[in-house]
Amino acid sequence: MNKLQLKGLIPPMITPLLDNDVLDVEGAKKLTEHMIAGGVDALFVLGTTGEAQSLTYRLRYEYVELICSTVAGRVPVIVGITDSSFDESIRLAHHAKKCGAVGCVAAAPYYFPATQKELIDYYTALADACPLPLFLYNMPSKVKVFLNVSTVLTLSKHPNIAGVKDSSGNAGYFASLLHHFKDNPEFSVYMGPEEVTAPAILMGADGGVNGGANLFPELFSAMTKAAAAGDLAKVQELNDKIQFMSATLYGLCDSDASFMKALKLALELHGICSGNLAWPYRRCDEKETAAVKAALAELDARNYR
Amino acid sequence: MNKLQLKGLIPPMITPLLDNDVLDVEGAKKLTEHMIAGGVDALFVLGTTGEAQSLTYRLRYEYVELICSTVAGRVPVIVGITDSSFDESIRLAHHAKKCGAVGCVAAAPYYFPATQKELIDYYTALADACPLPLFLYNMPSKVKVFLNVSTVLTLSKHPNIAGVKDSSGNAGYFASLLHHFKDNPEFSVYMGPEEVTAPAILMGADGGVNGGANLFPELFSAMTKAAAAGDLAKVQELNDKIQFMSATLYGLCDSDASFMKALKLALELHGICSGNLAWPYRRCDEKETAAVKAALAELDARNYR
Amino acid sequence: MNKLQLKGLIPPMITPLLDNDVLDVEGAKKLTEHMIAGGVDALFVLGTTGEAQSLTYRLRYEYVELICSTVAGRVPVIVGITDSSFDESIRLAHHAKKCGAVGCVAAAPYYFPATQKELIDYYTALADACPLPLFLYNMPSKVKVFLNVSTVLTLSKHPNIAGVKDSSGNAGYFASLLHHFKDNPEFSVYMGPEEVTAPAILMGADGGVNGGANLFPELFSAMTKAAAAGDLAKVQELNDKIQFMSATLYGLCDSDASFMKALKLALELHGICSGNLAWPYRRCDEKETAAVKAALAELDARNYR
Amino acid sequence: MNKLQLKGLIPPMITPLLDNDVLDVEGAKKLTEHMIAGGVDALFVLGTTGEAQSLTYRLRYEYVELICSTVAGRVPVIVGITDSSFDESIRLAHHAKKCGAVGCVAAAPYYFPATQKELIDYYTALADACPLPLFLYNMPSKVKVFLNVSTVLTLSKHPNIAGVKDSSGNAGYFASLLHHFKDNPEFSVYMGPEEVTAPAILMGADGGVNGGANLFPELFSAMTKAAAAGDLAKVQELNDKIQFMSATLYGLCDSDASFMKALKLALELHGICSGNLAWPYRRCDEKETAAVKAALAELDARNYR
Repeated sequence: MNKLQLKGLIPPMITPLLDNDVLDVEGAKKLTEHMIAGGVDALFVLGTTGEAQSLTYRLRYEYVELICSTVAGRVPVIVGITDSSFDESIRLAHHAKKCGAVGCVAAAPYYFPATQKELIDYYTALADACPLPLFLYNMPSKVKVFLNVSTVLTLSKHPNIAGVKDSSGNAGYFASLLHHFKDNPEFSVYMGPEEVTAPAILMGADGGVNGGANLFPELFSAMTKAAAAGDLAKVQELNDKIQFMSATLYGLCDSDASFMKALKLALELHGICSGNLAWPYRRCDEKETAAVKAALAELDARNYR
Repeated sequence: MNKLQLKGLIPPMITPLLDNDVLDVEGAKKLTEHMIAGGVDALFVLGTTGEAQSLTYRLRYEYVELICSTVAGRVPVIVGITDSSFDESIRLAHHAKKCGAVGCVAAAPYYFPATQKELIDYYTALADACPLPLFLYNMPSKVKVFLNVSTVLTLSKHPNIAGVKDSSGNAGYFASLLHHFKDNPEFSVYMGPEEVTAPAILMGADGGVNGGANLFPELFSAMTKAAAAGDLAKVQELNDKIQFMSATLYGLCDSDASFMKALKLALELHGICSGNLAWPYRRCDEKETAAVKAALAELDARNYR
Repeated sequence: MNKLQLKGLIPPMITPLLDNDVLDVEGAKKLTEHMIAGGVDALFVLGTTGEAQSLTYRLRYEYVELICSTVAGRVPVIVGITDSSFDESIRLAHHAKKCGAVGCVAAAPYYFPATQKELIDYYTALADACPLPLFLYNMPSKVKVFLNVSTVLTLSKHPNIAGVKDSSGNAGYFASLLHHFKDNPEFSVYMGPEEVTAPAILMGADGGVNGGANLFPELFSAMTKAAAAGDLAKVQELNDKIQFMSATLYGLCDSDASFMKALKLALELHGICSGNLAWPYRRCDEKETAAVKAALAELDARNYR
Repeated sequence: MNKLQLKGLIPPMITPLLDNDVLDVEGAKKLTEHMIAGGVDALFVLGTTGEAQSLTYRLRYEYVELICSTVAGRVPVIVGITDSSFDESIRLAHHAKKCGAVGCVAAAPYYFPATQKELIDYYTALADACPLPLFLYNMPSKVKVFLNVSTVLTLSKHPNIAGVKDSSGNAGYFASLLHHFKDNPEFSVYMGPEEVTAPAILMGADGGVNGGANLFPELFSAMTKAAAAGDLAKVQELNDKIQFMSATLYGLCDSDASFMKALKLALELHGICSGNLAWPYRRCDEKETAAVKAALAELDARNYR
C-alpha cells in the first residue's frame, strides 16, 4: 500500500469570517474558486493561517463541509485536526473524511508541552485512530515543542503517517529532514513559510504550504513549478517577487497577527472575502488599513495578481 | 457593588479519568469530600492541574456539573474557561453559572500569542460577555504570553474582573502585583506554585491555588492560615513540610507532566480516584509507580496525610 | 575548617566611569564611603551591576585595587571573576587576593552554554584553582544557563565553594535552595533582586545582593536587619518602600539597562559619582534624565535617602 | 571607495590547543597548510568555532600573529573581535591590522543584551574606531540578541561595515537579507551553518563560513564553487555528502560543544592538530572518541578527505 502523496502548492486557506462565530460563506466560495483558478495543487483547511484554534468546533465543522463541497473533488483537500484534546482531533478527522477530505494534518498538542517520547506515543495513537492519512506539522512558535528529526524518523515508519510540514523556519532542521527522506518517496516533506519555499523545493522538498497563495495563487504556483523543475533563473526571479511582496505587505505591526491581518484585508480589498479575524486578533485598524492599501498599490504597479 | 472576594486555599482540582474521555465519577466525588473535609476554602475546576485543555468539551461540561452538584454550596466553586476560542470560553462560562459556580478563571488564548494591547482587548471583551466574575490567570509556561503588571493594572479596573492568579513563578512580578494592589481589597492576588505560597501570603497575597492540596488538603490549609495570621515560625515549619513533599514526590521524570503524574498516582494509591492522565500524557509506568510508592512511604513515615 | 560566611547586605557596587575606559576615581571613593556609612555588611565589586563584562581587564584590576584600598578592611570585599575565559578568571582572583578581597563570585561562562555536567566540571576546576573562597552566581538572563539545584548541591560539597547568589528571580528555585541548605550553615544562600529579598530572608536566606543599596544603603540595611530578625510588620513597611522606589525609578525604558541607567544617574544627581555607562549601554538621554529627576523628587518627598 | 569584498569559502578556524592556555603551534601551522591546500578562499580566525571567548587575550593575540605569518598573504585573513568590552575589541582589531589581517568580524556584546537601537549605536562606534573593515556577525544562540534586518540595513550604510555573517539558522531572516542586498554588491552576505550553505549560495549569498572545512576543505570548496556557478545537480550531490558527514560525525552528545569536540578530535585523528578544547568544554572522553573513530571510518569508506 502506498502512502498518500501530494506535491506542489498546498496553500493553508484563511477562514473568512463575518463575525467571530459566523462564517463568510460567499467569501469562502469565492476564495476557493480564486485559488483553484490560480493553479493550487491541493487545499489545506483549518491550519494556522486558517485560525483554526480560534474558532468554535461548530464553525470548524461547517467550514470543512463548505470547502469540501465547493471544491467537489477538483483538487485534494486536507484538514487540520490540531487540538489540545486527542478525542476532539479524532472526532474532527471523522468529519473530514465524511466530507471528502483525503488527509489530516496535526501539530502537537499546544497547551501541555510533551517530551519527544510523549510525542511519539501521542502521534502513534493519533495515527492509529485517524481515519485518514496523517501529516505531521512542526510548528514550535505556536505549540512550544519541536518535532525532532529523530522523532519524525520514528513516526515516518507508521503506515498512516504520510509526511511532515515544517513551519519552524529552522534551516538546518529542514535540510536534515530532506537528507533523511530523500530516498523515501512515500514520506513527503513540505515547507511552510513562503519566503523560503523556493530553495526548499530546489533542494528536494515535495511542496510548499504558503499562506500568500490565498492572495496570489498564480505567483506561488509558478514558483513551485519552476523550483520543482530546477529552473534556477526562474526561481530566483519569482522568489524575489515573493520576497518583495512579503516585505511590502506583511510588516504591518508588532503582533504575530501582522501577516494574517494584512493577508485577510488584502483579500477583502480585492473583493474576495471579509478581512475580519477571530479573537484574540482583530481586523486592521484605520492606520493599518491605509498601510495595506499602499502596499497593494505598490504591488499592483508591479503587476502582481 | 463589591467584587467577588475569595481568600485562603483554593486548590485546582485534578480531573479523575477512567479513560481519555471517561470521567471517574466515583473518584471525583471521593476527591471532593476529601478536600472539603481537609478544609479547603474554595475549589477551582478545569485549571491546568485539571488537564482542562486535554479534555473534550463534553467531559468538561460533565465535570463542572458533577463537582458543583457534589459540593452543593459547601464551598464556592470557580471554573476554568481558558480556551483558544473566545466563544467556547463564553459558552462554558454560561454552563458554569447554570451549575452554580461563582466565578471563572481564564488564562490567555494559548495557540496564537497576543500582544499586551491585544490581551487587554481580549480580556475586556471576555469580561464583558462572561456571566460570572472573572479571574485573570498568568500562566506563561503554557500559554507563551505574560500578563504584564501594567496589563493587569488596566484590566483590574473592569467591574467584572476580580483578581489574578499567578503561576509564573517569577518572584519580582508577584512582588510587584502585591505592591500595586495592596490598597485595593477588591482585587485579589493569588499564588499558584505551592512551594512559594507561604512567603507570598506572608507578604500580602490573598491565597494559594496549590495542586498538592488535592492530596494533603489539611497541610495546605494549615499553612495558608498560619501565613495569613503572620505566624512566621509556624509558616516556616509547614512550608518546610511542603518543600520536602515536593522534593520527594514530584521529581519523577523530565516531563512537564511529572507533577501531575505523581499527584494522580498518589491519589490512586490513597484510594481516592484513578491515576490516569489524558493525552498527551500517560499514567506512571512501572518504574515511576515504584518511585511514587517509595515517596509516599517516606511521607507516611513523617506523618503526612 | 569553616567556610567563609557573610551575612546581611552585600551590595553589588556600580563602577563609576568618566569614560568607557576611564575610572571615576573620586566618585568611586565617595560611593564607598556612602555605602559604608549606610551600614552595608560587605561589598561586591565587578558584578553585573558593576558592568564588569563591559570593562577592559586593565580597568577591572584598577577598580578592585581602588575599592580594597579605600575600604581598608572596614567591611569584607568580594570580587566578581565571571569570565568566558577560565584563565582570565583565575588571574583576576589572584589579583583580588593580593588587594585584600576575601572571596570571589563567578557566574557561568557566558558565551558557550555548558550542560549541568560541564558546569560541575568547570566550577570544580575553578574552585580548585581559585585562591579565595568562591561563591556560585546563578544569572541565567545574562549567561543563558541555569545552575540547577542538583548542580548547586553537588558543588556545595567542594571545600572552597562557600555559597550561591541567585539572580534568576525564579521563586520556586530559590525556595528549593533554601530548603536544601537550611541545615547547612556553612553554605550561604543570597538573593539578588532587591524587590524579593525581604521574603527571601524571612524564609531563611543569608542576605541580599541588592543594587539599589548603592543609592539608599540605609533603607536596604534596615530591611535586611528586620527580615533577619523576623519582624514581619517592619519588613512589610520597608519592603513596600523598596517596591515603590523600584516602580518609580527603574522603569525608564525598554532596555535591560534601564535599572543601571537610572541608578547611575541618580547617584550623579545625588553628587556621588558619574552617571556614565560602559558600552553597549549609554547614560540617560535628556528625556530619561528628566524622568529620573522627577522620580527622585517623588522619593525625596517621601523621605528617601 | 569600494568596500572589502570576500567571496566563496571562508572557514572559521578552530584554535588548536596543547592546554587551556597553550597554543598548539605546530598543529596550527599544519592546519593552515591543510586548509590552503584544500582551496579555501580566506580564513576567519577567532570566531565561535575558534573558541575565541574561552581563550586569554594573550593567546588570542599569539594566534592571530601565528596564522597571519603562516598564511603570509596567500589568502586574506579576517579576525574575530567579538567581545563584551568595546575597548578590548578595538585593541584586538589594531593588533589584527598590524599582523596583516584584512578585516574584522564582530558579534554583539554577549553579556548585557542590547536593544536594536543600542546595537546600532554600538556597531556605529565600533566601525568608526575599527582600523579594518568590519563584518557584522549574527549569532543569537551565543549572544542572546538578534541583529534585525532593519538594523543590518541601517548599519550597511556605514562606510566601514562590509557585510554580515548569519549563523542564526533562521531561514526567513537569511532570505530577507539576500532580498534586501541583492542589488548591493558592496555589502556581502555570508551563511554560517554548513548544512544550509548550498541553498544559501544558490539563492545569492556571497559565501559560506563553514566549520567543517577545517577537516574537509576540498569538499566545501567544491560545494561553494558549484553553488556559485548554479550547477544544481552538483550542488545536490555535494550538499548530500555534507549532510551525511554532519549527521554521522557531529551528533556526539547533548552538549552545544558536540560539533567542536568531534571536529577537533577528527583533526587530531587525521594527524593535523590537538583535539583539546578550552573550558568550559573538554575534549572527547573515551566513549565519544570511539564514536568519532567509527564515524571517520564510515566517512573514509565513502571517500571523504
